[in-house]
Amino acid sequence: MTRYFLGIDGGGSHCRARLTDAEGTVLGEGRAGPANSRAGFEPMIQSLSEASNEALAASGLGTGDLGEIAMGAGLAGISRIGIREKLAGLALPFASTRFDSDAVIANLGAHRGEDGAVLILGTGSIAHIRQDGRSYSIGGYGFPISDEGSGAALGLSAMRHALRALDGRTKPTPLSAAITARFGHDTARAIEWMDNAVPRDYGSLAPVVLDYAEAGDEIAHAIVEEAARHIERFIETVFQRGVQNCSLLGGLAPRIQPWLKARTVARLSRPEGDALDGALYLAGLRLPAPLDRG
Amino acid sequence: MTRYFLGIDGGGSHCRARLTDAEGTVLGEGRAGPANSRAGFEPMIQSLSEASNEALAASGLGTGDLGEIAMGAGLAGISRIGIREKLAGLALPFASTRFDSDAVIANLGAHRGEDGAVLILGTGSIAHIRQDGRSYSIGGYGFPISDEGSGAALGLSAMRHALRALDGRTKPTPLSAAITARFGHDTARAIEWMDNAVPRDYGSLAPVVLDYAEAGDEIAHAIVEEAARHIERFIETVFQRGVQNCSLLGGLAPRIQPWLKARTVARLSRPEGDALDGALYLAGLRLPAPLDRG
Repeated sequence: MTRYFLGIDGGGSHCRARLTDAEGTVLGEGRAGPANSRAGFEPMIQSLSEASNEALAASGLGTGDLGEIAMGAGLAGISRIGIREKLAGLALPFASTRFDSDAVIANLGAHRGEDGAVLILGTGSIAHIRQDGRSYSIGGYGFPISDEGSGAALGLSAMRHALRALDGRTKPTPLSAAITARFGHDTARAIEWMDNAVPRDYGSLAPVVLDYAEAGDEIAHAIVEEAARHIERFIETVFQRGVQNCSLLGGLAPRIQPWLKARTVARLSRPEGDALDGALYLAGLRLPAPLDRG
Repeated sequence: MTRYFLGIDGGGSHCRARLTDAEGTVLGEGRAGPANSRAGFEPMIQSLSEASNEALAASGLGTGDLGEIAMGAGLAGISRIGIREKLAGLALPFASTRFDSDAVIANLGAHRGEDGAVLILGTGSIAHIRQDGRSYSIGGYGFPISDEGSGAALGLSAMRHALRALDGRTKPTPLSAAITARFGHDTARAIEWMDNAVPRDYGSLAPVVLDYAEAGDEIAHAIVEEAARHIERFIETVFQRGVQNCSLLGGLAPRIQPWLKARTVARLSRPEGDALDGALYLAGLRLPAPLDRG
């Protein structure tokens, strides 16, 4: 019998876990580092374990209770070849385990398991659609071959422009000066940074780009507008698939939304829950729908 | 006394060495793998040694002759922090050693040590200028923060478009079909490829992009035209610095040149020698200028 539900949101920058009873009352929560298979399968499992154990410890449940827990986890990078097979091979002590992508649980959370779509704009960019029994994503293949309109894409565009401004191929702007100032205006230091830069490092420049775009910097403006075009195209593609409800999620969403067309924004719907709610739904937790949907 | 000259061209994809006497007569040549410090200092030195030893063996010179050899080497990535210091610390058996960048020896070779510039378009893109006693490069900071107009940039643009065509965000074209066919039209395989892809892998797609651009593919056309705009801007920047002679070099040069404006192409000059000639010049070899410069 399932008495408890464990939801895990394993994202590229951190991992969160939440343990509830069958009424959805939170018994404990936990948190750990990144859970992206790109950095390796074992580090990913390590993060999941850490966050789960912290939630279990906080709840006061003992090892004798593990067999009464239904677990659901959404993981960044689960679609990489071989990862689902490795996850299926894990010997876990729970009553049941379900793994899916971080995009799936975001979608389940945003629409409480009903048909709908989400476009997640953070370090990367990915859309996920659940419609008429189909569940699939668009984009989100990773940086630099994908993730148009993402924080990493904004940061990379800014870096490229800033370095060209520094060597005289293009006109410096306040944005390019702010970016190169991070490297003491020294290209060699920028190269050294790049050698170890992961998408999150590029994404850390996105707020700077948005600050300068809002302040009227010409190049920042152009970079954000290019990202907005990709995002508009993303949203159009989602609605072309017959979706009724699409929510914009992720750390970049609140700041990029004002750059989208008003008619696009008007089509978006407010998410009803977050990715952890979705992970708990994936685990099997069903809660009564709130009355204020819309 | 210097009786022999050893020139080494240490590029990102391979390393070549040439040994000559004081009249420039070739005594031996050698070849080895990549010599880019990005893959580590030791592997770079290993490539240099292999190519040099092969040239020495072919020449029939013995260890007793090493003290009469002046060596000059141009290395990709020499501008990375700490590399010049490490090179200076090497105990080499030669009469003299001079290290500089691969761009410098390409320039010395193209203009026989006279003032001039080169724009090298291969996997990456970099310009190098020698003018009025100054010697410096523009661009070439590495992929993906730099190398606009390069083979890697062409390949990345093609990958990005192809994946968007595959998921329905943009219209498929013959180019996108040719690119995704390389991965069995399977996005997961493209992601797997990306996880291990180095700039050279992206650059390997450049000939495909050019093939389709020449055949009239709309997207391939746009991608090549964007690269051409970056290259035009690169060349304009070089001439703005007061340079009289600029040569277009690198594996991509012959195929991208027809996409440049005729007035731009008319300003370019034919290189008088290659990077190995430049490395020998760096080593100290001076040969009489040919009569047909222009």
